[in-house]
Amino acid sequence: MISAHHCRDMDAQDPLRVLRDRFVIPDGVIYLDGNSLGVLPRATADRVARAITEEWGQGLIRSWNSAGWFGLPQRLGDKIAPLVGAQPGDLVATDSTSVNLYKVLSAALRIADQRAPTRRVIVSERSNFPTDLYIAQSLCHERGFQLRLVDDAQVEPALADDVAVLMLTHVNYRTGFMHDMKLLTAAAHRAQALALWDLAHSAGAVPVDLQAADADFAIGCGYKYLNGGPGAPAFAWVHPRHADRFEQPLAGWWGHAAPFEFTPDYRPAPGIARYLCGTQPILSMVALECGLDTVLAAQPLGGMAALRRKSLALTDLFIQLVEQRCAGHGLELVTPRAHEQRGSQVCLTREQGAYAIVQALIARGVIGDYRAPLPAATWAQGHDPAPGGILRFGFTPLYTGFEDVWHAVAHLLEVLEQREWKRPEFNQRHTVT
Amino acid sequence: MISAHHCRDMDAQDPLRVLRDRFVIPDGVIYLDGNSLGVLPRATADRVARAITEEWGQGLIRSWNSAGWFGLPQRLGDKIAPLVGAQPGDLVATDSTSVNLYKVLSAALRIADQRAPTRRVIVSERSNFPTDLYIAQSLCHERGFQLRLVDDAQVEPALADDVAVLMLTHVNYRTGFMHDMKLLTAAAHRAQALALWDLAHSAGAVPVDLQAADADFAIGCGYKYLNGGPGAPAFAWVHPRHADRFEQPLAGWWGHAAPFEFTPDYRPAPGIARYLCGTQPILSMVALECGLDTVLAAQPLGGMAALRRKSLALTDLFIQLVEQRCAGHGLELVTPRAHEQRGSQVCLTREQGAYAIVQALIARGVIGDYRAPLPAATWAQGHDPAPGGILRFGFTPLYTGFEDVWHAVAHLLEVLEQREWKRPEFNQRHTVT
Repeated sequence: MISAHHCRDMDAQDPLRVLRDRFVIPDGVIYLDGNSLGVLPRATADRVARAITEEWGQGLIRSWNSAGWFGLPQRLGDKIAPLVGAQPGDLVATDSTSVNLYKVLSAALRIADQRAPTRRVIVSERSNFPTDLYIAQSLCHERGFQLRLVDDAQVEPALADDVAVLMLTHVNYRTGFMHDMKLLTAAAHRAQALALWDLAHSAGAVPVDLQAADADFAIGCGYKYLNGGPGAPAFAWVHPRHADRFEQPLAGWWGHAAPFEFTPDYRPAPGIARYLCGTQPILSMVALECGLDTVLAAQPLGGMAALRRKSLALTDLFIQLVEQRCAGHGLELVTPRAHEQRGSQVCLTREQGAYAIVQALIARGVIGDYRAPLPAATWAQGHDPAPGGILRFGFTPLYTGFEDVWHAVAHLLEVLEQREWKRPEFNQRHTVT
Repeated sequence: MISAHHCRDMDAQDPLRVLRDRFVIPDGVIYLDGNSLGVLPRATADRVARAITEEWGQGLIRSWNSAGWFGLPQRLGDKIAPLVGAQPGDLVATDSTSVNLYKVLSAALRIADQRAPTRRVIVSERSNFPTDLYIAQSLCHERGFQLRLVDDAQVEPALADDVAVLMLTHVNYRTGFMHDMKLLTAAAHRAQALALWDLAHSAGAVPVDLQAADADFAIGCGYKYLNGGPGAPAFAWVHPRHADRFEQPLAGWWGHAAPFEFTPDYRPAPGIARYLCGTQPILSMVALECGLDTVLAAQPLGGMAALRRKSLALTDLFIQLVEQRCAGHGLELVTPRAHEQRGSQVCLTREQGAYAIVQALIARGVIGDYRAPLPAATWAQGHDPAPGGILRFGFTPLYTGFEDVWHAVAHLLEVLEQREWKRPEFNQRHTVT
């Protein structure tokens, strides 16, 4: 049996442990929801206060130049680039993930349309994050394409000769299942389709190499593992081979070749800058930069490879402890055991009480989240791996410790043994994120 | 001749003067650029600090519910509504102005397409803010419409029987010319076209009554007269008669009828909520709320009508002082003298030196901005009212005083008399916003 002492030893030997000091972890909280909203970096409050009182308050309009506000999408993009295997200058931080998906999927469909107009299908995963499917549905409706949804194991066989674009989320938000980006991108290219990746649960969580995988388009989220704060701006990347070729439809002035000439005709900026649209929320951008700096602080300690080693050690430990200590309580593992198929989260399911167990844990300060079963229609050709709903636990190696994992499972065991989840207050549903 | 003493008296008698205390005005600065970036409200720094340290830092993911983050687009929308003659529940604060224009213009074109598919023209103004024209061009290209650009005086005659949508900015960003919203909306409706208004330079600056004007769609900006901070989220409004009828293409999960059911099919929320797309930048939203509160603080003092009276008194005073004190220096007024055609800014032009005069003023702490002449092609059927470029001065009645105006013109006179604008350092062009 793994002991608390052993977990403390693991923390003592963890070369990344020093990074935890860069964050504010509330007293009494074991935070396993960094896959939904990353923890507050210590540097953020002062940095945003300076942006407000000095840059805005004193500099006023002059700060667009003097404080570098106007260049923030590119400067932050250059900081995200090394985390996802992109070149500086090929990525911008801007807008929301959904809006960025609209831009890049739209550009992908235009390329596909020109290359092979008979290819009218977008392949994606049935249990992809809903907003990705909604945006794809919208563009299908606009442009005369069809969305073909399959289970995760059926992606490759679905790449028939009618496929224009393969659009996948690298790590599934519900199950933590991770696709093989390189293999599926190659399969898409063999099938003469483009490959578009959503890195919402990957950037800052698992090593990603967009260039090595030869991906075509990617988007990702700033407020999960990148610790940018609630609703932090997202990012968009386009492979340089496509960057100058197509306009995206959200053709706003920030994506113009000469935004301050105020010419009446749109002329897209070269490269990734044309994926910008309107004026960006500077306070949220500034906070995002502080988040990115926490991830970049791991670079001298081994970077994403070291973070990945620790992430796998954390999720392995959680799985082992749940199986050792909570055996016989009806919990089942949803996330794959195979390292190469696992993101930085672990999902469990249980026939009954999954929602209430999560609420009982939150009341104890162990913050994970719950994801409801998907509607039956979602699984028409497959099966729901979690018919009782999902208990979702994210492990951010920058600030999560091994002893945290031990205590989290200890609380889980108490909730189960004491049947705490039967209490009425933990069974009242309210909005969850 | 108007004296400084007289201007001080006007400040002493100004019932809105107390509102100035709600802002941080830097020492030595006379700020006449609130039409580009509003001044920092005193409440903002503490409010955003609380959002960071308490709501994000301590509340973490729980704050989506407990701190009301998820409802911010609607709550802020309800605060903007009374400033533009909208009903609560019909307006949301979200995304950028450009992105919102894409949503509402797209919805407008769909309605037009269903009503009268032979109408394929969007009428707009040649000197409209460029991003509006770029977004319109993009949608024209996507949907098979044409953009017909005319001079401000030619809008009504341009409403022929091929027109689907009239898209105008209420107050022109360069000249300060204000359209008659009610008259032109009625003309559009008589021509069986829809009327879409950009309120970027109107919301918080001049009285707007979208419902009384019977407008169809509107968008606006959060960081100008609403004092929301650099790049603050924008807003979108749709007349209730259209709200439930059409989906907009940026169909993200925040616009879904049940975003937390995570269903694979998009089902638009009822009403204006369907104009939301992805997760919003909460820190920038929180700052926007502080800005809105500064404008709402004028409600007990007479609201937008009182602000408008003061705004006209300020711009009248500026025009009079320039004409009295700077006569013979080659300055010409671009903004209309008629109150009903004037926004809350005054624009001057000069054959030579407009750019350098603005730089010399900024060096003296009098912050306005410069707008370059538009390319010749812009004026193919009209004339550029400011071939030498524009000196633009915005007057925000919440915090601009009458004595400020006096001093601003005194500085302008010194710059002209001392030929300060001839200095090389004021003639070096750099990026301006």
